[in-house]
Amino acid sequence: MHIGLVGLGKMGANMRTRLRAGGIEVTGFDRNPEVSDVASIAELVAALPAGRRFVWVMVPAGDVTRGVVTELGDLLAEGDVVIEGGNSHFSDDAAHAAQLAPRGVGYLDVGVSGGVWGLENGYGLMVGGDTALVEAAMPVFDVLRPEGPRDEGFVHAGAVGAGHYAKMVHNGIEYGLMQAYAEGYELLEAKDIVTDVPGTLKAWTRGTVVRSWLLELLVKALEEDPELGEISDWVEDSGEGRWTVDEAIDSAVPLPVISAALFARFASRQGASPAMKAVAALRQQFGGHAVKPAGGS
Amino acid sequence: MHIGLVGLGKMGANMRTRLRAGGIEVTGFDRNPEVSDVASIAELVAALPAGRRFVWVMVPAGDVTRGVVTELGDLLAEGDVVIEGGNSHFSDDAAHAAQLAPRGVGYLDVGVSGGVWGLENGYGLMVGGDTALVEAAMPVFDVLRPEGPRDEGFVHAGAVGAGHYAKMVHNGIEYGLMQAYAEGYELLEAKDIVTDVPGTLKAWTRGTVVRSWLLELLVKALEEDPELGEISDWVEDSGEGRWTVDEAIDSAVPLPVISAALFARFASRQGASPAMKAVAALRQQFGGHAVKPAGGS
Amino acid sequence: MHIGLVGLGKMGANMRTRLRAGGIEVTGFDRNPEVSDVASIAELVAALPAGRRFVWVMVPAGDVTRGVVTELGDLLAEGDVVIEGGNSHFSDDAAHAAQLAPRGVGYLDVGVSGGVWGLENGYGLMVGGDTALVEAAMPVFDVLRPEGPRDEGFVHAGAVGAGHYAKMVHNGIEYGLMQAYAEGYELLEAKDIVTDVPGTLKAWTRGTVVRSWLLELLVKALEEDPELGEISDWVEDSGEGRWTVDEAIDSAVPLPVISAALFARFASRQGASPAMKAVAALRQQFGGHAVKPAGGS
Amino acid sequence: MHIGLVGLGKMGANMRTRLRAGGIEVTGFDRNPEVSDVASIAELVAALPAGRRFVWVMVPAGDVTRGVVTELGDLLAEGDVVIEGGNSHFSDDAAHAAQLAPRGVGYLDVGVSGGVWGLENGYGLMVGGDTALVEAAMPVFDVLRPEGPRDEGFVHAGAVGAGHYAKMVHNGIEYGLMQAYAEGYELLEAKDIVTDVPGTLKAWTRGTVVRSWLLELLVKALEEDPELGEISDWVEDSGEGRWTVDEAIDSAVPLPVISAALFARFASRQGASPAMKAVAALRQQFGGHAVKPAGGS
Repeated sequence: MHIGLVGLGKMGANMRTRLRAGGIEVTGFDRNPEVSDVASIAELVAALPAGRRFVWVMVPAGDVTRGVVTELGDLLAEGDVVIEGGNSHFSDDAAHAAQLAPRGVGYLDVGVSGGVWGLENGYGLMVGGDTALVEAAMPVFDVLRPEGPRDEGFVHAGAVGAGHYAKMVHNGIEYGLMQAYAEGYELLEAKDIVTDVPGTLKAWTRGTVVRSWLLELLVKALEEDPELGEISDWVEDSGEGRWTVDEAIDSAVPLPVISAALFARFASRQGASPAMKAVAALRQQFGGHAVKPAGGS
Repeated sequence: MHIGLVGLGKMGANMRTRLRAGGIEVTGFDRNPEVSDVASIAELVAALPAGRRFVWVMVPAGDVTRGVVTELGDLLAEGDVVIEGGNSHFSDDAAHAAQLAPRGVGYLDVGVSGGVWGLENGYGLMVGGDTALVEAAMPVFDVLRPEGPRDEGFVHAGAVGAGHYAKMVHNGIEYGLMQAYAEGYELLEAKDIVTDVPGTLKAWTRGTVVRSWLLELLVKALEEDPELGEISDWVEDSGEGRWTVDEAIDSAVPLPVISAALFARFASRQGASPAMKAVAALRQQFGGHAVKPAGGS
Repeated sequence: MHIGLVGLGKMGANMRTRLRAGGIEVTGFDRNPEVSDVASIAELVAALPAGRRFVWVMVPAGDVTRGVVTELGDLLAEGDVVIEGGNSHFSDDAAHAAQLAPRGVGYLDVGVSGGVWGLENGYGLMVGGDTALVEAAMPVFDVLRPEGPRDEGFVHAGAVGAGHYAKMVHNGIEYGLMQAYAEGYELLEAKDIVTDVPGTLKAWTRGTVVRSWLLELLVKALEEDPELGEISDWVEDSGEGRWTVDEAIDSAVPLPVISAALFARFASRQGASPAMKAVAALRQQFGGHAVKPAGGS
Repeated sequence: MHIGLVGLGKMGANMRTRLRAGGIEVTGFDRNPEVSDVASIAELVAALPAGRRFVWVMVPAGDVTRGVVTELGDLLAEGDVVIEGGNSHFSDDAAHAAQLAPRGVGYLDVGVSGGVWGLENGYGLMVGGDTALVEAAMPVFDVLRPEGPRDEGFVHAGAVGAGHYAKMVHNGIEYGLMQAYAEGYELLEAKDIVTDVPGTLKAWTRGTVVRSWLLELLVKALEEDPELGEISDWVEDSGEGRWTVDEAIDSAVPLPVISAALFARFASRQGASPAMKAVAALRQQFGGHAVKPAGGS
């Protein structure tokens, strides 16, 4: 099998490597000529063998993805398939599919998990779209996904959009899990009778209810830097966490834990919190409570 | 009527002033001789007229209050009444009452709200204890409480402990209210199309659903310092907020808002958050995400 | 002064009454002929005197409002002003203004607070738009707003959209305030030593830190139904609460309290919670913990 | 090695089985004679060989544990060791140790994780106490803990109390993790384009960031009951979750996620929520909003 792959950033390049190692021929395109196999998306399409052509898109979500899908729509033909594997919002997928449908170009959306570890361990794949297309692309999915039973690392989650929706929810859960471990870590650190915090977390990696891959990563981080002294408490958030809470609001689903995890990240990036200045000001007003002057120690 | 008042700090001294202005004779004792009317609690008790004697205790909760109650138990006699108006935990009240009961000394617990404004506006009073004692002490309560109908500023909330319990819940609510206004303030500040944030809050003080005394205080704070530039975002918490959440846990009552307000205060006082360092470390491990080095800008 | 008013539902009809009582002539239109003064919006516009014409729009947000604004754009002329007083999302306002601008029709957005009480007490008004237009419409605002100083019930909050933005934030705060009181109410109800819960809340209405109009309403509700036995725990939410959290996410503002209040409403309307079924299932899996069968008591 | 084991409930009996299978001789006592090896704790102590004797206590926390520790204090002698492996609050451990110390009886506290799966997989062990005692008891720990490197399933976490503290934090984290998965599950269930929710969760078990043992259990639960139709949304909580939040409050550690998970369990067990009745009553008061009458559908 021979596919096209648009986007050879960190993720895309690793995926190309894993695909080739698994026996899939890949023609890759990237704006960066140093990593690109061809000079343009048109060349990429031209390089693919006759018959149903597959082009995997792995570029930044939003305008860039929209642009690539549009360009592919012009270059591909009846029976070909665009596989959108980036971090798009699931609502973009219906638009992409509708845009390609008049030309008979099929569309699959794929949520891809695994980060930098995916090259070695395989990528968790969540796919949305028509069953016939999913089956046609299965050789590609089978190489990308982790070894083991197909259903432990791959799912055809539903209609177009379901792949990115599932990935969005996956990332929302990830926010909650990380914050839960982090709160527990802080409680351990706060207690003087606990003298081996990294060891305690490591002891949880077998036999306990909380064992997980994220826990193993936290253990690894603490082995490298037992006090996390080299790292600041400033935490970025990606679109998926926000989208998850947005979606919960649209669907009237209570999401106290995932939203709390998201807000903790927002707060981590603030200098002085306007809200807490207001609370301090209020306490001063009604109780004559001492406040810290701004800039005070 | 002539009562004793132990504790002439900011609150106690103001209460003495209001009581005297209202026609109640007060003999006050404080460790600080400059503000004290007598040299000892024994002298204070001796100064009270014959018949049922009332001593109001207004000292720091915990050991100091326990010490004063114990001393009063030795000095008072059958029919006298201790009124504990400090910020004690409600569970202390049953112990105090049990300690005094064998001598026939009655006990009332009073939650007092109003802060520095109480001198002028009157104090909100929540009382726990026997009805007969509450009625006997009513002349004192009537002077301390705000003018207006008695039931809009005073309540006999229930048995011993109910006064402090009600005050604890009052303060827990206060945490939630303050945080709600503060979050709204921050949202206004964050939006460029809103150019008059202090004016917006002021406009809410009449006719709106959110009008309240706390809102008026926030307006006042913003009139004094429109950007809250002179105040830090470091917010202390008092015992009552913590006790409210503890009590919710004991009673299995969900308390998402009040607990969130309490945790926001905890977070406001942290330098680097260990939890968020752990989240940052996790993101770095699984995704190769950039982290800020500690001390970085 | 003589203005047009489109939309005579509960709010619009009350506003017409208050405007007329305050000396503003009003021609009102509603799809319901029983309450309408004219048969169409065209007739309404025709009924207004020459010179700058003002039409206040008070219809459901979204498509209905968009339709009315579009129709007014066709009927009005250079110098006229549309005042949008409904519950629109602030992002609609820029679109409305841009739509009207080519014809020289001005646009103001007004957030209106006060609910059914506004007829008597006046409405809190938050206005967005150009200063000249705000000043031109001031006679109308002065009648609608509560008596007292103008700035305690009215604000020109900023540019187009700022009025609805401020109202959105107002409602978000309202969610947090209500939930804070409600949590406190539940804690009081849960404690056996507190025997007078309605009286305790009533006592807070003067002299305390938590006194507010909402508290007075809760006291009133408890006077009518001391156990709230006639009311279910099912709580609707309006768009503004959701929009407030959405906006916080867009602006990366932590909003733990207001979001918790929103989620509590979502949860109140669920029958069986899928999330809690999942937690119960998990506990059963790892611990052999007993679960309740569905439909069990 | 030959040890005593007091308490042969579900956990204790399984541990006896695993210990014996691992070559540790065990004399067990339980109030239930059908499972007990001896008729009394005195007989149990008498059955142990001369030299340092170890008695593992695995009975309900609180009074029962205190009673057994006290009885063992009377029966054991200088150099013997009590290992408290139940779900005690960490603050009990210092008291236990202090009670035994005058007789020269040593004390270790052990947090044990693994539930019903521990018999087969081994138990995660977190130990508090003196290093010499921990080393002396290591043959017992090595049999109980999971196979693999010792530090991936066992930790000497710190001083007396550190074992139970670590287990408490472990369980608090567990609450947060479970709620995070559960919220994600509900979001998937709420979305019509996602047609294979159990398959989506199963696909996450390899290669993704959220893979964990708890996720595997949720997958198993959904394989047994794909709609969770046989299970109610009523979720119990154990002491450790509450203790974790209590401890956070004592230590001023923000715990938004774990507390939200705890409160969600409280809410799951409520019939009508008093708080949400209060919110509904408030909405009715200020807005004339419709409420559901109690008992309405």
